[in-house]
Amino acid sequence: MNLEKLKPKREVAIIGIGITKFGEHWKLGLRDLAVEAGMKAVDDAGISGKDIQLVVGGNMSGGLFVGQEHGAGLLADYLGLTPTPAIRTEAACSSGGLAVRVGYLAVASGLYDIVVAGGVEKMTDVYGPQATTALAGAMDYETEAYFGATFPCIYALIAQRHMYQYGTTREQLAMVSVKNHKNALENPFAQYRRPITVDDVLNSPLVADPLRLLDCSPITDGAAAVILTSADIAKKYTDTPIYIKASAQASDTLSLFARRDITTLDATVMAAKSAYKQARVSPNDIDLAEVHDCFTIAEICAYEDLGFAKKGEGGKLIQEGQTEIGGKIPVNTSGGLKAKGHPVGATGIAQIVEIVKQLRGEAGKRQVSGAEVGLAHNVGGSGATATVHILSNKR
Amino acid sequence: MNLEKLKPKREVAIIGIGITKFGEHWKLGLRDLAVEAGMKAVDDAGISGKDIQLVVGGNMSGGLFVGQEHGAGLLADYLGLTPTPAIRTEAACSSGGLAVRVGYLAVASGLYDIVVAGGVEKMTDVYGPQATTALAGAMDYETEAYFGATFPCIYALIAQRHMYQYGTTREQLAMVSVKNHKNALENPFAQYRRPITVDDVLNSPLVADPLRLLDCSPITDGAAAVILTSADIAKKYTDTPIYIKASAQASDTLSLFARRDITTLDATVMAAKSAYKQARVSPNDIDLAEVHDCFTIAEICAYEDLGFAKKGEGGKLIQEGQTEIGGKIPVNTSGGLKAKGHPVGATGIAQIVEIVKQLRGEAGKRQVSGAEVGLAHNVGGSGATATVHILSNKR
Repeated sequence: MNLEKLKPKREVAIIGIGITKFGEHWKLGLRDLAVEAGMKAVDDAGISGKDIQLVVGGNMSGGLFVGQEHGAGLLADYLGLTPTPAIRTEAACSSGGLAVRVGYLAVASGLYDIVVAGGVEKMTDVYGPQATTALAGAMDYETEAYFGATFPCIYALIAQRHMYQYGTTREQLAMVSVKNHKNALENPFAQYRRPITVDDVLNSPLVADPLRLLDCSPITDGAAAVILTSADIAKKYTDTPIYIKASAQASDTLSLFARRDITTLDATVMAAKSAYKQARVSPNDIDLAEVHDCFTIAEICAYEDLGFAKKGEGGKLIQEGQTEIGGKIPVNTSGGLKAKGHPVGATGIAQIVEIVKQLRGEAGKRQVSGAEVGLAHNVGGSGATATVHILSNKR
Repeated sequence: MNLEKLKPKREVAIIGIGITKFGEHWKLGLRDLAVEAGMKAVDDAGISGKDIQLVVGGNMSGGLFVGQEHGAGLLADYLGLTPTPAIRTEAACSSGGLAVRVGYLAVASGLYDIVVAGGVEKMTDVYGPQATTALAGAMDYETEAYFGATFPCIYALIAQRHMYQYGTTREQLAMVSVKNHKNALENPFAQYRRPITVDDVLNSPLVADPLRLLDCSPITDGAAAVILTSADIAKKYTDTPIYIKASAQASDTLSLFARRDITTLDATVMAAKSAYKQARVSPNDIDLAEVHDCFTIAEICAYEDLGFAKKGEGGKLIQEGQTEIGGKIPVNTSGGLKAKGHPVGATGIAQIVEIVKQLRGEAGKRQVSGAEVGLAHNVGGSGATATVHILSNKR
């Protein structure tokens, strides 16, 4: 058990955020999306490109989606930032969470004062099954993908087991999707802004039993970016810096079969444990969370793994309405991966963008009133990687 | 111009190295190679897996080469290191240099004491042209790869211009390859351990005029790893820590056409400038260097961009034998990318491994006598990314 130490050499804050509309952008490529999000973050922070000393870019698979590796370099190039160094980070769908972590380490090291951490994915330029193949790069190729496993089927196994072991119901799974679609109605950047019902989910086409179409997050184009600096410098740029109180990450086996318990993402459990310790808070202190709902079952597991519900009681939490806006712990106020969309490399950053908006009080009709502490939870694969960040508007 | 600051919060040292044989490993996959290098580095450092707090893994395109993204997580998994966090870094062929930099930032931040930074690529499982396509992901897809450009053709343009503008000769290009093959004879981990002559190079098949087969680095399977810790902790583990005196990186446009001068890699110039400043040394103080000779012309440009020769006089430097072992500034004592081999994600780490061996006095028959300060230079694409590390056996 090797968790992060409790305190970096320098504390880190977020002074700018930017996000594109999530959806099918047939007229925008990887670079256009990344540049749009980056420019918005720069404007929001009130800095100029010259101030940026490092670019960190999360991208899962520019190679398999659009033939383009070297994505962070491309971003530095098209943002006009050369010779500023650029680092791409990748851990499948948690590539964005990693970008924030590497930017955080860079500022904490004392070597960089202003860092942009962004994430981007361009997924809709490929024919459907090719996207499934690219995404399968996140699982263990030799033990899973090679034998035909897809992510819906992996998460369906987790759902089957959770239902068998804890009595979680098909309806409870559907409620996750209904809540996230409802939240997305108030998010102008979300891909799907239409309300759905439990019946809509239950009657949608079966993808991998018990998961149906409306249990699954979509294929999405999109990008998001944040500007990081030290907590001391932040006040120079903004009256509302948002502080990174914890940046944690943990790993698990890539293969589902090798896990201790397939309904528990140990990487989430470990990263959350480290994050709560770093931030000196408990799950009860979290005012809202963005969690990795790539499938509805994943959000229910996240409730449990992050400590918002006891093991096996995640289904009950959604059923009681506790994770709605106004509930005990609002989850995925942005619409989550399900309704906001899931451009895999951008998702981890987009989660942080939502938390920052909420902690600044700028979330409009989806605002969680009085929010002071928020958590972002980003997962790679079926849980081989998890990052957990805790943010606060108080230093 | 945003260069790194001069001093991190904590100085960083290397206490362990590991490398696999480079070549065609038809019986070893991505994970086998990565685990072999990682285990060797752990053994060399005299630590146990439990001591490792972070894994950073450089890999250019596991996705396009073998269908496997999420490579750092895979490494943590198969090294038995879960729940230790794992971060993949990528900037094409400089992915390994980036892994060292991110490991360096992690230690410098004070959050991690022991970090393994590794690099791996498995390139020979694909049919030749597919490897060319995968590597093309390092250039600008929309302005270069899409129109049929390959890396040999991009570097051939650079060579043509260098010959036209500075009178660099075909024979001088060949001498780079001859020297590197000679050095590889004494490196048991090198892919090609056979001497070649200038005539062999000149008579080898034409790839992209003026570059011939023996001007080009090969497709290679291989992995390498180093163990990083703070300079203060290092002495606890070894009597011969090697200190990272500088870790620098810079960017340039991905497209060659967009450059100020196609015979100068400005990213190398800028990264070198920052590195010399951080380490408080000049090019004259460097006892040996590993440079990025993906093609023979690239080594000649590197001589100039790193300050070992004046602009336009790189060809003269090789002709005079100054970069041979025993010369003024021995370059690529390992055999370089040309003869040691070029598993793209591993190359940046393998360069550091060679410098560490030399500075420890453990390089056998290719030892540079009295070496105290070494430089490693890793390039992504045609120079969109460059990293420069300066190492010393004196703190």
